[in-house]
Amino acid sequence: MEENSFLEIAKKAKAASKKAATLSEKIKNQALLNIAENIKNNKDKIFEANKKDLEEAEPLVKNGELSQSVFNRLKLDENKMRDMIQGIIDISNLEDPIGKVLLKRQLDDGLVLTKISCPIGVLGIIFEARPDVISQISSLAIKSSNAVILKGGKESVNTNKAIMSLIQDALEKTEGFPQDMLTQVFSRDDVKNMLSMDKYIDLIIPRGGNSLVKFIKENTKIPVLGHADGICHIFIDESADFEKAKRVVIDSKTQYPSACNSVETILIHKNFKEADRLLEALVETGITLISNPESWHKEYSDKILSYKFVESLEEAIEHINEYSSGHTESIITENSDNARIFMNAVDSAGVYHNVSTRFADGFRYGFGAEVGISTNKTHARGPVGLEGLTIYKYNIEGNGDIVKDYVEGIKKFHHKDL
Amino acid sequence: MEENSFLEIAKKAKAASKKAATLSEKIKNQALLNIAENIKNNKDKIFEANKKDLEEAEPLVKNGELSQSVFNRLKLDENKMRDMIQGIIDISNLEDPIGKVLLKRQLDDGLVLTKISCPIGVLGIIFEARPDVISQISSLAIKSSNAVILKGGKESVNTNKAIMSLIQDALEKTEGFPQDMLTQVFSRDDVKNMLSMDKYIDLIIPRGGNSLVKFIKENTKIPVLGHADGICHIFIDESADFEKAKRVVIDSKTQYPSACNSVETILIHKNFKEADRLLEALVETGITLISNPESWHKEYSDKILSYKFVESLEEAIEHINEYSSGHTESIITENSDNARIFMNAVDSAGVYHNVSTRFADGFRYGFGAEVGISTNKTHARGPVGLEGLTIYKYNIEGNGDIVKDYVEGIKKFHHKDL
Repeated sequence: MEENSFLEIAKKAKAASKKAATLSEKIKNQALLNIAENIKNNKDKIFEANKKDLEEAEPLVKNGELSQSVFNRLKLDENKMRDMIQGIIDISNLEDPIGKVLLKRQLDDGLVLTKISCPIGVLGIIFEARPDVISQISSLAIKSSNAVILKGGKESVNTNKAIMSLIQDALEKTEGFPQDMLTQVFSRDDVKNMLSMDKYIDLIIPRGGNSLVKFIKENTKIPVLGHADGICHIFIDESADFEKAKRVVIDSKTQYPSACNSVETILIHKNFKEADRLLEALVETGITLISNPESWHKEYSDKILSYKFVESLEEAIEHINEYSSGHTESIITENSDNARIFMNAVDSAGVYHNVSTRFADGFRYGFGAEVGISTNKTHARGPVGLEGLTIYKYNIEGNGDIVKDYVEGIKKFHHKDL
Repeated sequence: MEENSFLEIAKKAKAASKKAATLSEKIKNQALLNIAENIKNNKDKIFEANKKDLEEAEPLVKNGELSQSVFNRLKLDENKMRDMIQGIIDISNLEDPIGKVLLKRQLDDGLVLTKISCPIGVLGIIFEARPDVISQISSLAIKSSNAVILKGGKESVNTNKAIMSLIQDALEKTEGFPQDMLTQVFSRDDVKNMLSMDKYIDLIIPRGGNSLVKFIKENTKIPVLGHADGICHIFIDESADFEKAKRVVIDSKTQYPSACNSVETILIHKNFKEADRLLEALVETGITLISNPESWHKEYSDKILSYKFVESLEEAIEHINEYSSGHTESIITENSDNARIFMNAVDSAGVYHNVSTRFADGFRYGFGAEVGISTNKTHARGPVGLEGLTIYKYNIEGNGDIVKDYVEGIKKFHHKDL
C-alpha cells in the first residue's frame, strides 16, 4: 500500500477513534457478541482460508524458510477456534475500562476536578503468524474504545483476511458502531508507514519474536508496548528449600521453554549445600546446563539453562540488574529478610519469592485478558490488561471560575476529595 | 564532556538508582530538609553566583542575543529564594509515592500477588534558564527515589553550580544517601549523549520552550514527559452566559499570556447572540483579535487571540480535535448536555466546563508539586505530580508454586482481592 493511501487509513482511524471514545458500553459489548456469533457461524470460511495458508506454507517449511513452530502457530484447529470465540465473549464480560472516575476532588466551592479514564486513541498492532491475534486485539480495542490498525504476518494473510471480513460484517450490523475503528493492512511498506505516523498512531504493540520487537523499537518515535528479550533469573539462596528450588526451576525452564517468562539463568549461593544434587536433578529432566559468561545475556527459548555460583545475595541482585531484560525473576529462600531485600532491589516487572517465573501472565494475574507483557519503565509494566490501553483526562466543572481570583488571594483552594 | 565520561556518569546514575529504590522515607525526607537548610544558610553564595550570570547575560540582552524574559527568569531574588526553599520543604511533607500497594490479590491459597509502586530509574532533565528548576527537580527525584542527571541552560551555569554544590554538601551529610543519585552536566554534547543513552536513562523531562521540547522529542528513543505546544481553545456555545464567557476568556488569555495553558483560539457558536459584545469587551482589555485559518495552529504566547464562528457544537469539537495540542480546552455553556458531549468528545488532557483554561496546573489540582504538564497519550497526561515519576512492579509470594499444576488442572486460581 502506498504511503498516501496508508495516510488515508491513518486519518480515518484517528477520526474513528474520536467517535469510539464516546461509544456506550452496551454498543461495545453488542459488537463483541456479534463478532463472536459471526465467527462461530462462519468458522468454515476461516478454516478454508487457513488451509490455503497452510498449503502455501508447507513447501517453505520443507525448504527451511519457515520453522515448524511458526507453522504450528499458523495452524487453526477446533480447539483454537473455540478458544478464540470464547476469548471474545470473555472480553465482553469484563468491566468497561473507560469512563472510570479515578479521582474526584473539590478544588473550591462549586469547582470540581474529575480524573476519568479514556482511550489512548489509535493503536498500531504488528504481529507475526498467529491469526488468533486479530480477533483478540480487535476485541480488546473495541472494549477499550481504541481504534486499531492491524498488520499481520504474510504467512497468515488468507486467514487474517477471512477473520477480519467476519469481524467487519458483524460490526456493520452493530448499530452506532464506527467501522473505521478497525482496519487491516498487508504490505511490508505498511509497517514502515505505521512506524512513521506518530501524528496519527498513539501506541504500537508488537506481538512476535525478539527481532520483530527490536526492529520496531529501533524504528519509531511512537511509544511501543511490549518486550524484546525475556531473560529471567532464579536465585537459589543459601537457605533455599531443596524441593522448592527443584520444583520451581524445573517448572520455570521446562513447562514451556519458548515462553518469554521461562527462566534462562539460575544463580546459586555458594553456601547452598545441595547445589550438586539440584544440578543433577535438572540434567535428569533433560535440561542442558551451561556455565559461561557469554550466555548471561542469551535467551535460549529452549531446555538450555545457564548457571552461576555467587558469593552473596548482593552479587545475585547485581548480576540480575545487569543482565536481566527486566521481565521476571524469582528468589528461592526460607529467609524472609533476604526475600524482602531481593524483591525491593531487583528492578524487574515481576519479582517473586518461591514461585515459578512462568506465573508472569495476565490471565494468571486475574486480568481477564492480556494485551501483552511489557518491560517498559513507563505507562504499563509486566502483564498488561485492558487498563494498559487506557489513559485519563481531567475534567473541571465550574461556574465562570477564573485563576486571577486565586492568584490575587480573593479566593482560596481547599482541595477536598469527594 | 566526552561521551566516555558521560557514559560513566550514566552508569553511576543507573547503579545509584538501584540503591535509591530501597531508600527509606525517613532518609529521603532528611535529605530534603538538609538541602533546604543548607541553601537557606548559604543563599549568599547562590546570589553571588547568580550576579555573575546576570553580568554575563546583560550584554547579550543589549545586543539582542538573549530576550528580556529569559533574563528575568534567570534572575533570583529574595522572593524566588524563599519559594525555592519552601518548595523543598513542601515536597518533604508530601506522602511517599514509593512502596504504595496498588493491588493485593490472592491468586490461590498461599499465592499472593502485590502490585507496588516503585521509581522509574534514571531521569534526564534538560532545562533552560530558570535556576530554581534544579532544586525543584532534585527534590522531586529524591522524594520519588529516582536518580537524575540535570543539564541546565548555559546562561545560568554559575547559579546552577552553586545550588548543586549546596545540594551535594547536604546529601553528603545525610547518612545512607547514595550521592551519585544526582549529577549535573554542562556541555551541549551532554544533551546529545543524554538523548542517546536509552540503556541507562529511562525518562527525559524537558523544561523549557517549544523548540527545546520539539528538538528533544525528535532526537531520542527515550520516553519524553512534557509538552511542546500549548494551543488551548474555548468554545462559546449558543447558550453561553455572557458574563461567564467574558470573565473566563479574559482570564484564560490575559492572566499570564505566555503560559502554556493560556487560550489561543476561541470558537463562537453562530447563534450566540452576544458575540459582538464579547469581542468588543476583549479588545477593550487590550487583546488583539485575529480571524485567519493560518493562526489556528499558532501559539502566540501573547495577548493575541484567534477567533472563529462555528455552525455547531460538533464543528467546534472537530476543530479542536484537529488543531489543539491536546493540552486544555473549555466550553462555556448553560446547556449541561452540550457540556457533557464536549467533555467526552474532546481529546485533550484537560476539558473544562465554564472554567478558565489557566486552571491546568499541578498545584491548582492539589498535587502539591508539579513535574510538568504532559500532552502524551501514555503514562502521564495533564499536570504531572510525583506519581508521574513512578511505575510499579509485581511481587508474588508463594511456597514453591508451579504453573504446571494449574495448566494440568491439579490446582485452580481463585483470584480474590485482599
